[in-house]
Amino acid sequence: MNRFCLRIEYNGGPYVGFQRQSNGISIQSVLEDAFFQLTRERQTFFSAGRTDAGVHGIGQMVHVDVTDEAWTAYRLCAGMNHFLRPHSVGVANVIPVPDTFHARFSARGRSYLYRILNRKFPSPLESGRSLHISDPLDTNAMITAAAHLIGHHDFSTFRASHCQAASALKTLTTLSIHTRGNFIGIYAAAPSFLHHQVRNMVGSLIMVGQRKWEPDYLKTALNLRTRSAGGPTAAAHGLYFLHVDYGDSVAASAPTDPLTFL
Amino acid sequence: MNRFCLRIEYNGGPYVGFQRQSNGISIQSVLEDAFFQLTRERQTFFSAGRTDAGVHGIGQMVHVDVTDEAWTAYRLCAGMNHFLRPHSVGVANVIPVPDTFHARFSARGRSYLYRILNRKFPSPLESGRSLHISDPLDTNAMITAAAHLIGHHDFSTFRASHCQAASALKTLTTLSIHTRGNFIGIYAAAPSFLHHQVRNMVGSLIMVGQRKWEPDYLKTALNLRTRSAGGPTAAAHGLYFLHVDYGDSVAASAPTDPLTFL
Repeated sequence: MNRFCLRIEYNGGPYVGFQRQSNGISIQSVLEDAFFQLTRERQTFFSAGRTDAGVHGIGQMVHVDVTDEAWTAYRLCAGMNHFLRPHSVGVANVIPVPDTFHARFSARGRSYLYRILNRKFPSPLESGRSLHISDPLDTNAMITAAAHLIGHHDFSTFRASHCQAASALKTLTTLSIHTRGNFIGIYAAAPSFLHHQVRNMVGSLIMVGQRKWEPDYLKTALNLRTRSAGGPTAAAHGLYFLHVDYGDSVAASAPTDPLTFL
Repeated sequence: MNRFCLRIEYNGGPYVGFQRQSNGISIQSVLEDAFFQLTRERQTFFSAGRTDAGVHGIGQMVHVDVTDEAWTAYRLCAGMNHFLRPHSVGVANVIPVPDTFHARFSARGRSYLYRILNRKFPSPLESGRSLHISDPLDTNAMITAAAHLIGHHDFSTFRASHCQAASALKTLTTLSIHTRGNFIGIYAAAPSFLHHQVRNMVGSLIMVGQRKWEPDYLKTALNLRTRSAGGPTAAAHGLYFLHVDYGDSVAASAPTDPLTFL
């Protein structure tokens, strides 16, 4: 039995999310079916994080075990991509990992990028790939507001009502705002996130960018520790799961500069 | 009668090209049909340049006349986008222009960007949006080679066999190579181009990048003035019509930094 870690990319648009579900095609089922077609082994794929329906993957990481020890990382990568061809899911890289590696539990950090196209009219080239906002956002106000959320806090205000985490205490390492042409990127990094935390923080930052809220209100909202104090959940199709940090060994398989994808 | 200039964006994948043709749906027919639905006027759209099937538009410029003088630029833009919604064609901007303005004949310069994803495996997020090349390209060799093509030359080597231009003499203002993560962008600017000139130059630069040709061979190829001395025509889906230069008045409607799109 050998264990492999795979870096997975996907356009989340056509899928019900990462996790296998009864109501449609998931990234997980697409991966497991392609793996079965290739190896004739039925194995479970474990991911670094479950992404919601419509959320895209650039640096999603998964691990899988294969019983037949003849499989090399390169043959798995090429073979998986062959059987994934009908889907908007691909394998960017495969590396062998020890049996002690776990895509979720070995992860030290995760990062996401949220893409906003901020101009009067939408772009057909960006359909389903970024959130379109017509009126100009005040990015300086968003930068001021984001600073209030960085650090170790109770993030109940930005947690989905159905989130199953035992505690809402999380450490937000980075929350930064970047611009490139008409695009605004919101980059968030942490050891781990609550369910919908990134999309809820983005929804609140947009309220600040639209000058509906003062930047300092996000400090108040955070301290209120209630979902009703936060902004709306930003649409899934602007969000990209960018990177998982496993320390030195596996890190090379993930993208190094997140802003390449803004 | 009022004349308007429109900046058009499109994903060229589903279309037979810009120009109206009998064998499928063109960008021109999509625009003219949306315009008719909006204004009840049948008018011809004139473009700065015809793009081939599969080529994308970011800064394509068109002009159209409207008899009903009640139409403002803003209402035309918003209304066109409403009727274009089922298509991957959009209007980024509309400005009123004098009757002497012509999208093609008033243009002083045009530029294109060719996008290459240069890494082992393709990306599902880049399907139909860049040319995937597995083996690493030697971009320094490509930069050296590109320099041989800049300037006023007979470009017969890079001209489609069915090109209808009277002369193959053209002035290539810029041909530059840019990298961003795993992406390579080839940017080309000139007052005007021959049919397939950009894709044929890109095909030749790729031959150099793959070390199948020495960089200096492109000087020889250019001087041979025959299509058979040039490289293959690079695939349409990597090419973006980026910008048209009309001087000060209309320039503001086109993207200012082409590398935002690499």
